[in-house]
Amino acid sequence: MTSFGFSLLATNGAARRGRIASAHGTAETPAFMAVGTAGTVKAMTADAVRATGTEIVLGNTYHLMLRPGAERVASLGGLHRMADWPGIILTDSGGFQVMSLAKLRKLDEVGVIFRSHIDGSAHHLTPERSIAIQHALDATITMAFDECTKFPATYDEVAASMRLSMRWAARSRDAFARRDGYGQFGIVQGGIFPDLRAESAAALTDIGFEGYAIGGLAVGEGQTRMFEMLDVINPLLPDHRPRYLMGVGTPDDLLGGIARGIDMFDCVMPTRAGRTARAFTARGIFNLRNARFADDARPLDPGCPCLGCARHSRAYLHHLFRAEEMLGSMLLTAHNLTYYQRLMAGARCAIETQTFEEYAVATREGWARGDD
Amino acid sequence: MTSFGFSLLATNGAARRGRIASAHGTAETPAFMAVGTAGTVKAMTADAVRATGTEIVLGNTYHLMLRPGAERVASLGGLHRMADWPGIILTDSGGFQVMSLAKLRKLDEVGVIFRSHIDGSAHHLTPERSIAIQHALDATITMAFDECTKFPATYDEVAASMRLSMRWAARSRDAFARRDGYGQFGIVQGGIFPDLRAESAAALTDIGFEGYAIGGLAVGEGQTRMFEMLDVINPLLPDHRPRYLMGVGTPDDLLGGIARGIDMFDCVMPTRAGRTARAFTARGIFNLRNARFADDARPLDPGCPCLGCARHSRAYLHHLFRAEEMLGSMLLTAHNLTYYQRLMAGARCAIETQTFEEYAVATREGWARGDD
Repeated sequence: MTSFGFSLLATNGAARRGRIASAHGTAETPAFMAVGTAGTVKAMTADAVRATGTEIVLGNTYHLMLRPGAERVASLGGLHRMADWPGIILTDSGGFQVMSLAKLRKLDEVGVIFRSHIDGSAHHLTPERSIAIQHALDATITMAFDECTKFPATYDEVAASMRLSMRWAARSRDAFARRDGYGQFGIVQGGIFPDLRAESAAALTDIGFEGYAIGGLAVGEGQTRMFEMLDVINPLLPDHRPRYLMGVGTPDDLLGGIARGIDMFDCVMPTRAGRTARAFTARGIFNLRNARFADDARPLDPGCPCLGCARHSRAYLHHLFRAEEMLGSMLLTAHNLTYYQRLMAGARCAIETQTFEEYAVATREGWARGDD
Repeated sequence: MTSFGFSLLATNGAARRGRIASAHGTAETPAFMAVGTAGTVKAMTADAVRATGTEIVLGNTYHLMLRPGAERVASLGGLHRMADWPGIILTDSGGFQVMSLAKLRKLDEVGVIFRSHIDGSAHHLTPERSIAIQHALDATITMAFDECTKFPATYDEVAASMRLSMRWAARSRDAFARRDGYGQFGIVQGGIFPDLRAESAAALTDIGFEGYAIGGLAVGEGQTRMFEMLDVINPLLPDHRPRYLMGVGTPDDLLGGIARGIDMFDCVMPTRAGRTARAFTARGIFNLRNARFADDARPLDPGCPCLGCARHSRAYLHHLFRAEEMLGSMLLTAHNLTYYQRLMAGARCAIETQTFEEYAVATREGWARGDD
């Protein structure tokens, strides 16, 4: 059993090329993590997820605690075994989705009481319970339980929320059962206020985690402000720990995040878009329901090795979405995830060869050029 | 290019073990053909279909002529190329679904005028047009255009409908462009009237086709009567041509059909059931939404090599259906098709070893025994 670790292999400006080592294998960074909300990356088999180059899958504590239930997952051998994903799994703390999905929430110093959006049943989520659930799920990477600060919010609201999250972070760390090859990440909060972000980063590094996440961004503040906050936060985080920008984002967000020192990303965008006929490609985003694809015999994204591009035409994908065939969602989800992973692989290579800025420029030029 | 052919390799009572050879490869019979209505076996990639042991996929002329359109499929290289299925494709004539799905049908000696159930557009389907569409789709096996006789119907109604279908069969044969490795099947009609079935079989063998289908069964007459009709019809068909029982059926129907000399079957049952949580297994049919599976860590059907059985638990499949995750439909469709193909492989082996009756008895005993 290896210990959980992060090796910084190369840097190129602020961009970092690294490797995470864990009980469930390694992951090359910068890494994009596929979102597997309820124990499955929607519309994909685990084999198909692997084939995209994905090395980390994210599970959602809120969803899994409600259905099928954390203890049930544990009795089935944990999330890795249940979902046939022997690789790294990161679970969120549940806090974000309690705020966005659950009903009748009541928050105090201890935690959050809420009702399930599925059956109305009452649940109490605290730092201790969140960490216990993530343990039961057998998460390789456990996230500290935090409050999702609303946006926009006043300075005082953000400060109070962040400080509660820091107290919860300390309780989360105390509740975390250290095991070889497993790690826990703290989450920097503080909204768009640099001094609050600095206070949060200091509080977390003082506690000490195996990695640091940046929460509370991509919530409506806009890309410019998000990038400004990354420029503020990243220098405050230790070099030898991975940095994870939560819930981000578009391919352009990823390039900007990498340029500012982010190592890990997750987002529903590639998978959700794949189910609604939107394709990410080297020439930008296409909507495959568009009539212009009806007779287009070309591959969606030439050079892409995914099944949809290697074996099918744009016209076939268009047909599948028009006919509401599940295979459309299956192929396009796989394609989009493959696109994201190829973008990350390209970024890793560019950092190694000290050409990340050129890579980002050329990639953005391709998007801007559009389809032929 | 091979010519289209059928070799009878062994018999066991009336049961037949054979092999179809075609321009798109061979298929071992008795064969179950997967239904790929709109150019995709629902919820499965072509690779996943292949992995089940499926050698023939069925396409629906009615669906494909309306969407994406037969000429469009032709311009995309045909159905094999479009759908990534280089194997054998059989297309139906469109007649059955015109009767069950289309609006404002008007039938005369020439053919059927109808409106699309998708957009209300008007179409005229004749024997000549049906055969031309199937040619454009590049069907390995083209079906003659026939009228789907309603059930129940009087003797006179069935006789008139069958005789129209026989005149259409002659026109279908005239319209068929013979090509090496491609074949065309006539369809025996005549409802549940032995003398009409005999008249139909004689008319078709007089025309001469590469294979013979039995239509108008499994439409409400019940299994006993269906089997009685098979006992009547099969002896009337030439030994050296494949016999295809259209739209049938349950695993038990398949065993009964094979015992009576049927070589080919197709049915939406395994794929449709897979999307609604119903699983075919060696111990009968399970509904995976049932609460008793919530904590069942066992594989769905021990010994089944499909992904769902080999890598997952019943509890996980249950969870996927409860959470309405697409992966549930994907895994269970693959499982059911694998089950059907294993049933057929077992039947082929049993015929070769002159043990088909024992095989059928033992298989039915397993279903009756139920789950442990």
